[in-house]
Parts: sequence; structure tokens; C-alpha cells
Amino acid sequence: MIVRPHQHWFTRLFVWHGSVLAKISTRLLLNVALSVTVIFFLPWYEALDIKLTIAPFSILGVAIAIFLGFRNSACYARYTEARLIWGQLVIQSRSLLRVSRTLLVAHPQEIRHLVNLQIAFCHCLRLTLRRKKLDNVLDRYLSQAELNAVLHSHSPCNRIILLMGEWLAAQRARGALSDILFQSLDNHLNELSGILAGCERIANTPLPFAYSLIVHRTVYLFCILLPFALVTDLHFMTPFVSVFISYTFLSLDTLAEELEDPFGMEDNDLPLDALCNGIEIDLREMINDEHKPEKMRPDRRYLLT
Amino acid sequence: MIVRPHQHWFTRLFVWHGSVLAKISTRLLLNVALSVTVIFFLPWYEALDIKLTIAPFSILGVAIAIFLGFRNSACYARYTEARLIWGQLVIQSRSLLRVSRTLLVAHPQEIRHLVNLQIAFCHCLRLTLRRKKLDNVLDRYLSQAELNAVLHSHSPCNRIILLMGEWLAAQRARGALSDILFQSLDNHLNELSGILAGCERIANTPLPFAYSLIVHRTVYLFCILLPFALVTDLHFMTPFVSVFISYTFLSLDTLAEELEDPFGMEDNDLPLDALCNGIEIDLREMINDEHKPEKMRPDRRYLLT
Amino acid sequence: MIVRPHQHWFTRLFVWHGSVLAKISTRLLLNVALSVTVIFFLPWYEALDIKLTIAPFSILGVAIAIFLGFRNSACYARYTEARLIWGQLVIQSRSLLRVSRTLLVAHPQEIRHLVNLQIAFCHCLRLTLRRKKLDNVLDRYLSQAELNAVLHSHSPCNRIILLMGEWLAAQRARGALSDILFQSLDNHLNELSGILAGCERIANTPLPFAYSLIVHRTVYLFCILLPFALVTDLHFMTPFVSVFISYTFLSLDTLAEELEDPFGMEDNDLPLDALCNGIEIDLREMINDEHKPEKMRPDRRYLLT
Amino acid sequence: MIVRPHQHWFTRLFVWHGSVLAKISTRLLLNVALSVTVIFFLPWYEALDIKLTIAPFSILGVAIAIFLGFRNSACYARYTEARLIWGQLVIQSRSLLRVSRTLLVAHPQEIRHLVNLQIAFCHCLRLTLRRKKLDNVLDRYLSQAELNAVLHSHSPCNRIILLMGEWLAAQRARGALSDILFQSLDNHLNELSGILAGCERIANTPLPFAYSLIVHRTVYLFCILLPFALVTDLHFMTPFVSVFISYTFLSLDTLAEELEDPFGMEDNDLPLDALCNGIEIDLREMINDEHKPEKMRPDRRYLLT
Amino acid sequence: MIVRPHQHWFTRLFVWHGSVLAKISTRLLLNVALSVTVIFFLPWYEALDIKLTIAPFSILGVAIAIFLGFRNSACYARYTEARLIWGQLVIQSRSLLRVSRTLLVAHPQEIRHLVNLQIAFCHCLRLTLRRKKLDNVLDRYLSQAELNAVLHSHSPCNRIILLMGEWLAAQRARGALSDILFQSLDNHLNELSGILAGCERIANTPLPFAYSLIVHRTVYLFCILLPFALVTDLHFMTPFVSVFISYTFLSLDTLAEELEDPFGMEDNDLPLDALCNGIEIDLREMINDEHKPEKMRPDRRYLLT
Repeated sequence: MIVRPHQHWFTRLFVWHGSVLAKISTRLLLNVALSVTVIFFLPWYEALDIKLTIAPFSILGVAIAIFLGFRNSACYARYTEARLIWGQLVIQSRSLLRVSRTLLVAHPQEIRHLVNLQIAFCHCLRLTLRRKKLDNVLDRYLSQAELNAVLHSHSPCNRIILLMGEWLAAQRARGALSDILFQSLDNHLNELSGILAGCERIANTPLPFAYSLIVHRTVYLFCILLPFALVTDLHFMTPFVSVFISYTFLSLDTLAEELEDPFGMEDNDLPLDALCNGIEIDLREMINDEHKPEKMRPDRRYLLT
Repeated sequence: MIVRPHQHWFTRLFVWHGSVLAKISTRLLLNVALSVTVIFFLPWYEALDIKLTIAPFSILGVAIAIFLGFRNSACYARYTEARLIWGQLVIQSRSLLRVSRTLLVAHPQEIRHLVNLQIAFCHCLRLTLRRKKLDNVLDRYLSQAELNAVLHSHSPCNRIILLMGEWLAAQRARGALSDILFQSLDNHLNELSGILAGCERIANTPLPFAYSLIVHRTVYLFCILLPFALVTDLHFMTPFVSVFISYTFLSLDTLAEELEDPFGMEDNDLPLDALCNGIEIDLREMINDEHKPEKMRPDRRYLLT
Repeated sequence: MIVRPHQHWFTRLFVWHGSVLAKISTRLLLNVALSVTVIFFLPWYEALDIKLTIAPFSILGVAIAIFLGFRNSACYARYTEARLIWGQLVIQSRSLLRVSRTLLVAHPQEIRHLVNLQIAFCHCLRLTLRRKKLDNVLDRYLSQAELNAVLHSHSPCNRIILLMGEWLAAQRARGALSDILFQSLDNHLNELSGILAGCERIANTPLPFAYSLIVHRTVYLFCILLPFALVTDLHFMTPFVSVFISYTFLSLDTLAEELEDPFGMEDNDLPLDALCNGIEIDLREMINDEHKPEKMRPDRRYLLT
Repeated sequence: MIVRPHQHWFTRLFVWHGSVLAKISTRLLLNVALSVTVIFFLPWYEALDIKLTIAPFSILGVAIAIFLGFRNSACYARYTEARLIWGQLVIQSRSLLRVSRTLLVAHPQEIRHLVNLQIAFCHCLRLTLRRKKLDNVLDRYLSQAELNAVLHSHSPCNRIILLMGEWLAAQRARGALSDILFQSLDNHLNELSGILAGCERIANTPLPFAYSLIVHRTVYLFCILLPFALVTDLHFMTPFVSVFISYTFLSLDTLAEELEDPFGMEDNDLPLDALCNGIEIDLREMINDEHKPEKMRPDRRYLLT
Repeated sequence: MIVRPHQHWFTRLFVWHGSVLAKISTRLLLNVALSVTVIFFLPWYEALDIKLTIAPFSILGVAIAIFLGFRNSACYARYTEARLIWGQLVIQSRSLLRVSRTLLVAHPQEIRHLVNLQIAFCHCLRLTLRRKKLDNVLDRYLSQAELNAVLHSHSPCNRIILLMGEWLAAQRARGALSDILFQSLDNHLNELSGILAGCERIANTPLPFAYSLIVHRTVYLFCILLPFALVTDLHFMTPFVSVFISYTFLSLDTLAEELEDPFGMEDNDLPLDALCNGIEIDLREMINDEHKPEKMRPDRRYLLT
């Protein structure tokens, strides 16, 4: 996520980093090259009686804008939902610990165990969503037996919830929790289960492939044909207008692609590292644990991963 | 569902499989044929003073794009909701088992019975949604008496929830569950009931028929009239522009039709087989059962059914 | 609801029934007649220097399409919500019976009473929403005293929920249900209450009247003025293009009106009869009652009421 | 709310009352006057080489339609949500009474007290939302002490919920309700609290002021400039087309303004009086109280307040 | 928030304050200056055969309007959600106090302590969202020990919820609350936790940066190029039309930016001060505390902060 501070509207026009401009520069240069070529071949082109007027492109342009707008909304909805689910993780992590700490005030060691499981869950979720290795992070929070169980599981995060369930059952078994309070705490585990399945859903079910493909194709074909349609009217102005229209469509298409997978590592994706870091600080502080990590800050390029 | 790995934007333009291009190829060829015919008959056509200008098509094009966009949103919302409901199934399956296993830790045989009922429910839901035969799948998970009850029911999935309800009542009857815990577990059955009715709703209540029909008709008529409107302006370029605009409208119309029934077996439908397979692995693993199935992978054409 | 089986895209173009085409045929014929008239009067019309160009109609067409699109979304949202509420009815009916049957397994007569109340509620809701007579249907399910109470009530459905509440209180009073289980079952009655009020809300609060009126008026005026605007450009083609554009706008306007009242008896409305029939079969089957009705099928014209 | 019965589409075109036409008639007449003036000054206007073509108005028209469409959606969402909240009030009123009546069947006097508090709450909510005097309505339902407490409160509705809370606590204090049932009934009070805060939110937080202003300004300016842009093309037809386009934009703008405050007394606002009347009849009937009010009917102009 | 009273539509056109007009005046003046320059250089410009027609701008204008419309919706959704969350705070504050007061009627001192914690939470949330200093406000409501704990915390609001949790646990510990009532009250704390995390989510996760940037850039570039495209057609009318179109796009872009951060101090942001003030009055009144603050009123410029 880019957390660029507020800038004057004029300065902002010249931002390069994080603007998806870098990603589509090749395609825009191709467009300029094509426009220039078209200007040179214009006399030969007109002689052939091959003419493209701008009117059908007007229909196409509006249609593509509507479909692109729809795809954008769908991808942004995925991004927003992903953020909402991680917000739920923040809520549930704090609430589960608050009630547990209150009810089991006489057993700080048990609470410390729970906190470690909770933090391990967050990191495990982050790492599996980003397809990274788990072991060198999780060994900070889990015992060797727990770590083995988690690493050998088909669904490591679900295994950690199972460990929390066992922890909770143990508290009930030794009489520290009545059935009502057990059920109340167990609901938080159900919520964690919902968070996990929500993330899996977003990560494993992309936008229907054909959707992205249709929009891609029509956008690219539109940008390729555009210089031919503009040249008879605009002549030397063709490259400027063509590249401007292409920028509008291509950049939104590219941004939609970034937002489609909100758990990725691209500039506009969610800052999962920072979210995990925040939860860890919160939980450690709630049990007055001094060993809390440093708060993460955006890097020099205003990026928060 | 197509799970094609990320490709370069240029390569992606030439994808054939899963792009709905195959489905609409006849219609696009018809469009090309019509455009070529129109070019040949142009002199005769102009002599008749029958002229179609592009201006009224501009109004129509935008109107159709807006309505097609709405239909697309409605169909995509059905697809998204269907996926959300199956995500709920993942959540509830795991949560029901987690709590049950925790509370009935002394009765592994009962838990194994529950797991079989749960997996049977998932497969039963998948098979009824896809109108396939149940018996040769469900007999792996149900006893003969249960299988008979399920197969002779008007609503097999609901019958399996009923069996789970009886299992739950039996646990309460022999004192293993207090009323509070019984009610808490029973809520998971209510959720399964909601999942079932949600899937039935999507499967049995399509988009109002007239909607699809109006959009179909106007899109097809638009594509048929398009060459007549373009030919006076574009002449030899008519087939190219006409087929491009037709592709934009027809492909989105066709994709919307695929998404409208998200439980089908078409390329862009939900991978119910893989979801059931995932739930089965999860549940078996949670009770340390060795007899879990292999994880399903996409086939050579990147398809996951 | 029309449940037409999947057809070839070409055949589908010629569907008459259920396509709202029948409903708007008069208005389309008027449009054709006007177009033909305009062609005849064209010379006189041009002599008067009364000219309507297509350009302002382009602005209007897009604006109307946007507003019509909005109205369509709003009406479709009402339809979807109505279906969702009836889906809730399916869920709650099954869940209430499942838990009751489980907990009161020793009192089949009581359960049978509950089932009759539940089915009566569904039919009562259907009949009041469609403003039909209640007595000749409800007397199959209610005792004479109950029937009297229901028929003399200002809100018959609410009275049936009250009867269920009394049934539930009776079970608690004779010690068959603890407070926890009572509250749990009572929640299902709250849900039924929500379903009832939801249906009443949709039925009694239409889309703001002025909305429909503005869209109607502008659509009709637009279609009336269209031939005048098209004739100078299109001449003999005027009737075809004019009727095509009118079809697009009028059919969507008319469909929106059908969907606005989803509980009606028109072609594209919800199949409340079939839904009630389905719930009755489900509930009877859950208590192994042999006297269940036949499953409703669509009629020859693919209609399910 | 206007509850005009279904009319023939043709008759409907000539509806005056409730169509917002009355409200914008001045502005439409101004537009006609301007159009006529412009026609007279056309020669002088053309001599000055001041020309306004329709092309830039096409861009503006579409842009304004999109923004107006968005504002309409936002205002309609407020209207829908307001109706939903009042639907919740119906649900909660009935459910709270149903359970209370069932559990406190031996104390009809207490139930009568509760019913009075409930009805007082509905009327109080209605009257505060419409900024009317409370005392001459509420004194029908509240004792003198209660009335004083309510009238002197900063938030009268909240005070009535507090009185219900005290009523509920009294029932628990004298042993009529276990903690579970107390909590269950108390949840209904929480829901009432949510209903109250929801209404306050809609009433006190309008659409951001700048939004309405921008749309107003651009719509009015657009309508003022329109005759100038149309006159060179349309000449004598200018007033007709100009007033038609203006009607489309102005009427939607004005309707949006009515819907923005759904609790008002304008034609298209919610019928709060009728809703309160309905709840009062429902509740009185549920306790077989003979003193229920008459059911409200729409007046001669189909208005339900 | 601006709470300008209802005005005549004509007067409203001349509003300056709160209309975002002030903010974009420089950019509009630049646009006028550019338009005038373009008119002067028109002969030289035409000689160069550099021509920009309005047709490609028509495509661009519609596309930009669609994307701007989407960005507006997204920002408005943030604003609406923020208001909804603060509405939740009103609900939970009142409900938590109502139940507590009812159940702990014998301990007014404890209730007073709770009220102070609740009010402190609201102010703390407001101040952290607006990045202001906490200590000189919170010391009115918290003891010195509490204040220290809160001020030294990484997440002060969460620390206050923790204090409420400890207060609640103390009530349970001394036997004033059964487990059921404890769990019921604790749910309100979970809701407060959700409110806090919801606000943090909106405040810390802006709209993806690239989105705002793409829309900014295309809007500004569009407005800069507009005079060049309009001048050949409109000549002396160029500045008027150009500044009007620019106003439409720039003002919506600027308003979206204000709404994006709904917790800010700009004209169209949420009135957090007034909301906190309202909650404080409500809570103090519910315990008949005389020391309630004055109700906040909008200032002379109709602003409520």
C-alpha cells in the first residue's frame, strides 16, 4: 500500500512511482510509435480508400468504459472485502484476548500461550496468502510439537485454530470456564475460522478468467485501432490524443489487475506485514509484555508492505 | 473455473480456450459474412435510397451497453453469492467439527460418524446442484439405512441435515452435551440449512427470463444491423470494425449466461468438485484420519471442475 | 416465473410468450404507424423549416438509458430481496421443525400440530400477498377455533405466529423445554416475524411513484419524438430503426414494472405457489407424513406460478 | 407516499399531482421563455459570431446524467434504508410483545403497560423525526410521571426505551424472568435502540451539502445554456426539445431532493402516520384490546401520510 | 458537516462557502486564462494545421465521467460507512449503559465510573482519528492511573475498552452479574472493539493511491486540452463552456477527495465533535447527572465540526 502524504494537486501530476505508469510504459510507447507510423503512411492510406472514422469508436469507447468500470468495481470490491476481513481479524484478536485475560486472570501463563497462538495465526495467514515459507517465522511463537503439527498440515492456519480450540477445551476441562463462557469464547474461534475461509475464498477464486480476458482484448484492440481512426481528423495531434486515451483505459485495466489479488506484493496491495505487526503490538501490550516488536513504517518510497 | 497462471499481456491476447470465443465463433463468422455481402451490394443499396447512418446506433449502442452492464452485474452477483455460500460451507464444516471433537473427545467413533455425515452433505449438495446421480458417491459415507433414507427423500441434502440433527440429539440424550452446548452446535446445523436453501434459491430462481431475452434480442439485432450502418462510412473496413464491436457485445452476453448458473459445468463456473475435495481433506485431517483423498489439481487446460 | 429450458440462441429470438413483447405490442404498432405517417408528411414537414436533428436525442437517449438502468436495478433489487425472504422462510421452516422434532421426540402429536401451523403460515403469507381468499385453503391446516382467530385478525399471518408462540409456551409450561431451548426456538419465531414484515414492506411500499412516472413519461415522449428526429436522415428506414430503439426502451420499462411487484401473478413474478408447495412437501417428509401433496411442475407455457 | 392504483399507461402520462411536475413548473416556464427569446434574437446572435454547438453539451449531458444518477441512487438508498428501519420497528414491536405476553401470561396489566410504552415509542419517533409537538399525542399512552420524564429529556425516544428497560428489570426483580429470558427480551430493547439511532442518523446527516450543490448548479446552468446550443440547429423546435430535456434533468433532481429526507411530509416521503397506526392496531389486537384505532386509508389524492 | 437550512433553488446557486468552489478557484482561473490565450493564438494555431476536434474528447469525457463516478461512489461509501460506525457507537453507548444501570441499580458509583469510561472512549476515538492531543480532554473523565495507562499505550482507545473489561470483570467477581449477563454485557464491549477497528480501517487504508492519481491526471489533462478542442467550434464562447465543463469535473474530483477521509476537519466531513457531545449529553441524562455539557450548534457559516 502506498501511503504518500497529501501533496499539492500540481506536484501530484508528476508522480512516477506507484502510479502504474511504469507498468504500462511499454504499451504506451508502442501506441506512440504506431501513431507516428500512421501519420507517415497517411497519404498511402487515404489512397487505398481504407478509412476509419471516429464514430464507431465512440460507441466502442463508451461500451468499453462501462465494462471496464464494472470490472474495476468488481476488483475493488475484492480489495475492500479483503481489508474488511483483516479488520475482522484485528477485532477478533483483541476481543478474544480481552475476555480470556479477564476470565483467566489467575493464569497468566495460559494467557501468554494463547497470545502466541493468536500471533502465529496472523503470521501464518499472511505467509500462506503470499505463498511464503512458514517455519522460520512460526518457530518464534509455537512449541516444537505445535510447529510440526502445523507444518505438516494441508491447511496450516486451520490447524492453529484447532490448537486454540484445544487450549480452550483444556480451560473448560479444568473448570475455569462455564459452558456459557466456553461457548462465548468459542464463537471467537468460529469468527477466526470465517476469516480464514474468507481469505482463502478471495485468494483461490479469481474474477472469472473470461471477464478479464474480454476486457483486456477489447482495450488493447481499441488502443491499437485508435491511431487509424484519429489520424484523418487530428493529423499531427494524433500521438498526443491517442496516448492520452490509451493511458486512461490501460492504467485502469492494469490497476484493476493489481486490486484483483489484494494479498499480493504489488504497490497497491494490502499491507499484510504492517497489519500483522500492528496486531502483535496490540496483543503484547494488552498483557503488558515488554517484548513487542517495533512499529513498521512506510519505506522511502512511501510503501507499506 | 479456469486457473490459468499469470501470463504476459501480449501472450494473453491469443488465448482460445476458456475465452468464450469458441462459443460465439459461429455468430462472429455470420457477422463477417454479412459485412462482406453488404460491401458487395453497396452500390445497389445506395441506389435504393435506403440509408442507415451511425448516429441512431450510437444511442442504441450506449443503451445496450448500459443494460448489458446491468445484466452482467446481476449474473456476476449470483456467481459471487454462490461462491460465498460455498465458503460458508467450508467455515461451518470446520467449525462444527472443531467444537464437536473438542467436546466429545472421549467418543472418537461418534466423531467419525459426524465427519462422514458432513462429507456426505457436501457431495450430496454438489451432485444435486449438478443433477447427477447420488448413490455411487454417497454409499462411501453413509450406512445402508441412511443411504436409503437419503435417496428416497424429496430433498436428499435436507435429509442429511436431519440425520446430523438426530446424531446431535443422541449426544444430548446421553448427557454428553448441556442445553447450552447443544444449542450452540445446533446453530451450525441451522447454518447448513441456510447454505442448502441458498444454493437451491440460486439454482431454481434464474434471472427473470424476459431480462435475458430482451438483452439477447437487442444485442443480436444490433449486431445484424451494424454492417448496414457502418458500410457507407467505412467501406472495406466494415467487416473488421463490425466484428470487433460484435465481439465486445456478444462475448459479454455469453459470459453473463455462463455466470448466471454458477453451479454448471462450463469453463467459468464454480469448481464444486475441488471445493468438496478440499473440505473432505480438511475434515479427515482434523481427526487425523489417514484415508484422505488426493488434492485435486487443474487439468492440462487449466480447468478445475 | 418462466422456467423455459435452455434453447439455441437463434430459436430464442422468436419467443413470444413471456417476453413482455405481447404487452407492449400496441405501443410498438403506434410507433410504426407514426413513423410511416412521418415519412409521408416529410416534404411538407421540411417546407415548414421544422427540423429535429438526432443530436439532442443522443443526449436524451443516454440520459434516459441511465435513469432506466437505475430504475431497473431498483426493481430487480426488490425482486431479489423478495426471493431472499422466501428463501429465509424455507430455511426457518425446516430448522424450526428439525430442532422441535428432535427435542420433542416423545410428542409426535404436538409436532404434527406445529407442522400444520407452519404450513398454514406459508399459505397465509402467499394468499395475503396476492390478495386472495384465505378460508378455503387454511381450513385444511387449522382447527376451527384457530381459523376463526386468524380470519378475524387485521393481520392473519401475525396471528398464526402468535399461535405458534402459544404452542411454544405450552411446551415450556409443561417442562419439555428449558429456558435456553425455549429462547432458541423462539428465535425462529422472531425470524418468521421478520419474514412477514419484510414481505409486507415490499408489498406495501412501492418504488416512489414519481420515479416510475418520470421514467414512463420521458420514455414515451422520447419514442413519440423519435420518428421526427430520424426521418430526415433515414427516410424509408425510419420505422425499422424507430421501432427497434422503442422496443429496447419500452420492454425494459415494462419488465421493471413487472419486477416492481414480485408477489404478483405476472409472467416474471415469483412462483409463490410452487414455493409453498415445496415447503409443505419438505415439512411433511421430515415427519414421515404420507399425506404430502404432489410436486408442482411448470405448465405447458413453462410457467410456474 | 402516493398509492395511486394501477392505471393504463396512456392515462398515466397526464398525471399532475404527485409527479413533481408542479414543483418545477416555474423553472420549466422560465426555460420556455428563454427558448422563445433566443429564437427572436437568433439573427443578432449569429451576427455576433457567438455560437454554441451541441457537441460540448453532449459531453456535459452524459456527465451530468451519470452524476445525477449517482445522487439519485444515494438518495434512494436513504429512502430504502429508512423504510427498512421502520420495518424493523414493526418486527421488533410484534416480537417483543409476543414473547412478553407468552412469558407473563399471568400479568395482563403489566403487558398492557408494555404495549402503551411500545406505542408511545413509535409515535414519539414519528413526531420527533417530523419536528412536531409530542405532548398531545403521548399523553394518551403514558402516565403523568412518565410523560414528564419523556418531555424534559434531550432525547425523548431514548427515555421511553429506558422506561421499557425499567419495566423489564421490574419483571426480573420479582422473579418472573430468568436471566436467560431477561437477556433475550433485553435484546429487543437493543434493537429498538438501534432503530432510534438509525433514524437519527438519516435525519441528522444529509447527503454532503456540496454534492447536492454541484449537481444543482450544473443541472440549472445546463438547462439555461441549452436553448442557445439548440437554436441554430432546431430553430422553432427549440422550446419543445429544450423543455423536454430540462424536464428529464430537473424532475430527477427534484425527486432526489424529496427522497433525501424520507421522513418529511412531501408527496413521495414515507407514510410514518400510517406505519404507526398499523403498529398500534397490531399490538392492540395481539392483546385482544378492543380500543384499537381505525385503519388509515389514502386520501382522495391517493396520499398516505 | 454543513447544515445549511433549506433555501430557494435560485438563492442556492450563489452559495460560496462549503461548495468546494473556493478550493478549485485557482484551477478554474487557469482554465479561463488558457481559453483566452487559445482564442488569441487561434489564427497562428490554425495555420500550423494542428487541429483538435471535439469528437475524441467526447469518448474521453464519457470515460472520465464513468471513472469519476466510480471514484465518487467509492469515496461516498467510505463516508457513509464511517457515519454508520459512529451511529453504532451511539447505539452501543446507550445500550451498554441502559442494561448496566438496570442490573446494577444498587451501585450508582460504579455506573458513574462506567459512564466516564464510555465518554472517554468516544473522545479518545475522535481525537486519535483527528490526530489531536488526548491528555487535556481525557483527564476530565479518567483517574490519574487510568490516564497514564491510556496515554502510554500504542492504541489508547483499545486500552479504554480494556479498562471497561476490567470494570465488567470486577462486577462479575463480586457476584453482581451471572455468567449470562456478563456475556451479554461483554458483547457490547466486542461491539465497541468492532467500532474502533472499523474507524482504524477507514482512517488507515485510503482508496488505492493509483486510483486517485489516474482520475486526477486524466481530469486535469482533460481540462487543459479542452480549450484547444473547443476553440475552433465555439470561438469567443470557449472560456464559458470550458470553465463550465471543468467545474463539473474538478468539483466532483475535489469533493471525492474530501469524502475519502471522512474523519478530517474539512467542510464536508463528519461532525465528530457534535457526535461526541451528543453521546455525552445522552449518557449523563440517562443517569440524571446534572453536569452535562451544552448542546453544540452549527456556527455562523452553518458548519458543525
